[in-house]
Amino acid sequence: MSTSIFDEAMPRQVANHCALGPVAFVERAGEVFAGVESVVHGQRRYTWHDTRERARRLAAALTGLGIERGDTVSLLLSNTPEMLEAHYAVPALGAVINALNTRLDAAALGWQMQHCEAQVLIVDSAFGVTARQAVAKLAHPPTIVDVIDSEFTGSGEPVGAHEYEALLAASDPIERLPNPFDEWDAIAVSYTSGTTGEPKGVVTHHRGAYLNAVCNAVTWTLPQGARYLWTLPMFHCNGWCFPWTVAMLGGTHVCLREVNAATILAAFREHRADHYCAAPLVHEMILKADPALHAGIDHPIRGMVAAAAPPATMISGMQALGIDITHVYGLTEVYGPAAVALKPADWTERSLEEKTRLNGRQGVRYALQDGMTVVDPDTREPVPADGITQGEIVFRGNIVMKGYLKRPDATAEAFQGGWFRTGDLAVLEPDGHVRIRDRAKDIIITGGENVSSLEIEDALYAHPGVGACAVVALPHPHWGETPLAFVERVPGGEVTPDQLIAHCRERLAGFKVPHHFRFEPIERTATGKIRKNVLRERARAIEPVPQKDR
Amino acid sequence: MSTSIFDEAMPRQVANHCALGPVAFVERAGEVFAGVESVVHGQRRYTWHDTRERARRLAAALTGLGIERGDTVSLLLSNTPEMLEAHYAVPALGAVINALNTRLDAAALGWQMQHCEAQVLIVDSAFGVTARQAVAKLAHPPTIVDVIDSEFTGSGEPVGAHEYEALLAASDPIERLPNPFDEWDAIAVSYTSGTTGEPKGVVTHHRGAYLNAVCNAVTWTLPQGARYLWTLPMFHCNGWCFPWTVAMLGGTHVCLREVNAATILAAFREHRADHYCAAPLVHEMILKADPALHAGIDHPIRGMVAAAAPPATMISGMQALGIDITHVYGLTEVYGPAAVALKPADWTERSLEEKTRLNGRQGVRYALQDGMTVVDPDTREPVPADGITQGEIVFRGNIVMKGYLKRPDATAEAFQGGWFRTGDLAVLEPDGHVRIRDRAKDIIITGGENVSSLEIEDALYAHPGVGACAVVALPHPHWGETPLAFVERVPGGEVTPDQLIAHCRERLAGFKVPHHFRFEPIERTATGKIRKNVLRERARAIEPVPQKDR
Repeated sequence: MSTSIFDEAMPRQVANHCALGPVAFVERAGEVFAGVESVVHGQRRYTWHDTRERARRLAAALTGLGIERGDTVSLLLSNTPEMLEAHYAVPALGAVINALNTRLDAAALGWQMQHCEAQVLIVDSAFGVTARQAVAKLAHPPTIVDVIDSEFTGSGEPVGAHEYEALLAASDPIERLPNPFDEWDAIAVSYTSGTTGEPKGVVTHHRGAYLNAVCNAVTWTLPQGARYLWTLPMFHCNGWCFPWTVAMLGGTHVCLREVNAATILAAFREHRADHYCAAPLVHEMILKADPALHAGIDHPIRGMVAAAAPPATMISGMQALGIDITHVYGLTEVYGPAAVALKPADWTERSLEEKTRLNGRQGVRYALQDGMTVVDPDTREPVPADGITQGEIVFRGNIVMKGYLKRPDATAEAFQGGWFRTGDLAVLEPDGHVRIRDRAKDIIITGGENVSSLEIEDALYAHPGVGACAVVALPHPHWGETPLAFVERVPGGEVTPDQLIAHCRERLAGFKVPHHFRFEPIERTATGKIRKNVLRERARAIEPVPQKDR
Repeated sequence: MSTSIFDEAMPRQVANHCALGPVAFVERAGEVFAGVESVVHGQRRYTWHDTRERARRLAAALTGLGIERGDTVSLLLSNTPEMLEAHYAVPALGAVINALNTRLDAAALGWQMQHCEAQVLIVDSAFGVTARQAVAKLAHPPTIVDVIDSEFTGSGEPVGAHEYEALLAASDPIERLPNPFDEWDAIAVSYTSGTTGEPKGVVTHHRGAYLNAVCNAVTWTLPQGARYLWTLPMFHCNGWCFPWTVAMLGGTHVCLREVNAATILAAFREHRADHYCAAPLVHEMILKADPALHAGIDHPIRGMVAAAAPPATMISGMQALGIDITHVYGLTEVYGPAAVALKPADWTERSLEEKTRLNGRQGVRYALQDGMTVVDPDTREPVPADGITQGEIVFRGNIVMKGYLKRPDATAEAFQGGWFRTGDLAVLEPDGHVRIRDRAKDIIITGGENVSSLEIEDALYAHPGVGACAVVALPHPHWGETPLAFVERVPGGEVTPDQLIAHCRERLAGFKVPHHFRFEPIERTATGKIRKNVLRERARAIEPVPQKDR
């Protein structure tokens, strides 16, 4: 290109350019929503003025403990005010958040802290004992800061050299939570659940977190002053960037240490929480709660569900409760959800069946994500939008991770072909929506035919006696594999295998109908995702009875 | 800073980084909202598939006319589909939009096109004659493309070598509207109205337009599928970036060639338009329209108003019509509005007086703007938030222009001190909201006292007989200056100077009460802003009668 008149003497400068980073929303909230309630946590209350002040003090305290740009601060915390404050203070220093899954054991926690070279660990006393074990064998153990939450009533113990509130009280707040030095700087490292192999540290950056925090509001039409309930653990992809979204909107964080039907519904009723994100398990809790717990809740509520398509019973049941459900899809590598099942303009007029079908899709890319498609595993070219041809879901754009920490090999593999490869198999429907036919390893190959375990699960969920289900491959001497269905019956229900087989026959091709059932509790991850790998382990221990009919 | 483990082997690449630019929303709309109505214009209808296709064809056609990155395409168009398509195609080429004010005369238009070195001019045949005159004397006249809009029923004539539809039909669409080469690239050059001196070409960039387009949705909680009515001329700050906002939301543009009460209310009724932006004059048109025109409009409508605080009569009147008004503030240099008067959570319970006061403020910075404050003109330090101390409103952040075209001197002056200086005088209220006491030149100095013309206007507007008013300084032999009020009476009204003086005495200090009145039509700009410079000219021609009483 030749030089243009528009290139002359118009450089970036402080008046017209600043690095994008989501902590900016906290500074603004402290400025323009100063008197608005920022956090409700049991008996505790803060305003945005308070929260900004506490984050500024925490930043000063962390600086005092030696934290600089590029250092890691690990967090072993429940969904408490301190967890939020750390999400505001750590990135303000250019340091990196490592939010640890509180349900992991000491060995796994220790491994992660060692891998990301944590220099400080902020730990809730509820997890003190585990934390002490986790750091005991580390060559360079982090400095520990104990959080003693007045709302915590269980047993726990402080294990560090510092106590959070005392540290804040002793620190003069920094003047301002600054924007990042560079918007490409790391903001967090989050370890993938790693059902097989070594966990990978997903490194995200300020630019992506900023855009995703904004995109949450756009995707969900979130209003100023939204009251957001923390059912989703913040250690899960930094709470899908909602800590920052809520700050942008001058909303209120409603914290929850314990997630169960009683605490959730109390938060809806008492704190008028109006938005929440959760795995299907949590939605089921709400749906199946004692009706008495629903009394006195009369405002509209909206929930986001990820990790599995909401079955028809959930959509209709939630609708009856005044809760509107949006299905989103994503992975840690894309900051949590990065795709949404859009609701067409005539949504309310659609049949329940149609709603279930539309909302069951993984959907389309978020507005601020640059690309999402389904590619042929061999050619890496997009598959036709025919709803039939399978391929791998891929993303590209600013809401994709920097890479895997200390794993250039894995990073290069994930970004091969100029897209981030999710490993999830799906089809592209004619209207451009992605529908997962199956996660790659969830395909059951029976008699040479590929069967989607999701398709069978959809069929099973349509039976009123099924509370939850999961289908995996059962090794089979004749067919190679055959579907095995784990089923949790609805409370008081007594559905039998024969009834389910008859039910499935009406909905599925013969070779897809499951003939093997286990009626037992289904294992889930801390975030409510069904642990299919555990179910597969169990399947390997089962001696299948040869099937006669297909 | 020492090198960090987070810097290793995680460079930006195509999978995880792309330049921000608002045309990306058009590509996405064509992909995920393909069948949704994009544009309604009289009898014409397009879907997002169509609009993307037409923009791709226009991009190809412009390339054929020699347009490259850094070149300028001038637009002399009404709010038509072609105006939107140009906003999508021109930046896709890295070229720069110069949207011309259709109410300017040929000399002014020619001057602007010469200054920004326009290579192509797309002109609606309604303005053909003016365009021909405008380019007649240019040393390097642009190539002219005529738009012949089937919805245009007036007289006009094509004046160029190409016709828009024929050009599109003859062009193979480009494969994709690409992201900008660099997000700092210019996207538009818009000339400030230039009430005095030479107009300045405000150069905006892709990054800012992208963030502002998103911020429109966040600020206004705009839903997917919004139906946006084009009452605001798109030549005004590129329609405040709403051409791109609506694409992001898969919304529908409802075009309007002629803006009057009948066409606006018909668009609400027939096309169910639910959002619009406009100067106060347009809101007044709606408010004062024949009640018969309001029949059949039963959906909620929201309007944004800029350029002047909405008086109480407008807020209450609009509320009665089911129209919710949001007051925003900005300038061309910050892409249109960049501040908003926030509505607190208990808005609906506030008294009309409170609503008027709160909504009358210029407000707080947009969520994606990095900074806004009021600084002392001498020290350049922020004034105290006491609601009393006056200073100049300043902005900083990504939604600030690159600079003034070919005016490094003016650019440097505007950005002096690391902030963009608006030239507007205001106070900072204790809750962080900015309230304009007066544009700098609108201060009236009478007997050594500073009087805000806005304060007097507020008082006058509270009188039911005042339809519109504007107060300027009248030179005065004794007092130096004294307030002169131009007043438009409400239709059929007969308010007298004595009545207004008595009314103002109850509300203002004696020295602020105006004693000079002109009951005559008030001149406004094309965008409805009162032209105080013209009123000041008129004031200079008046011989004041010495006042006895103060």
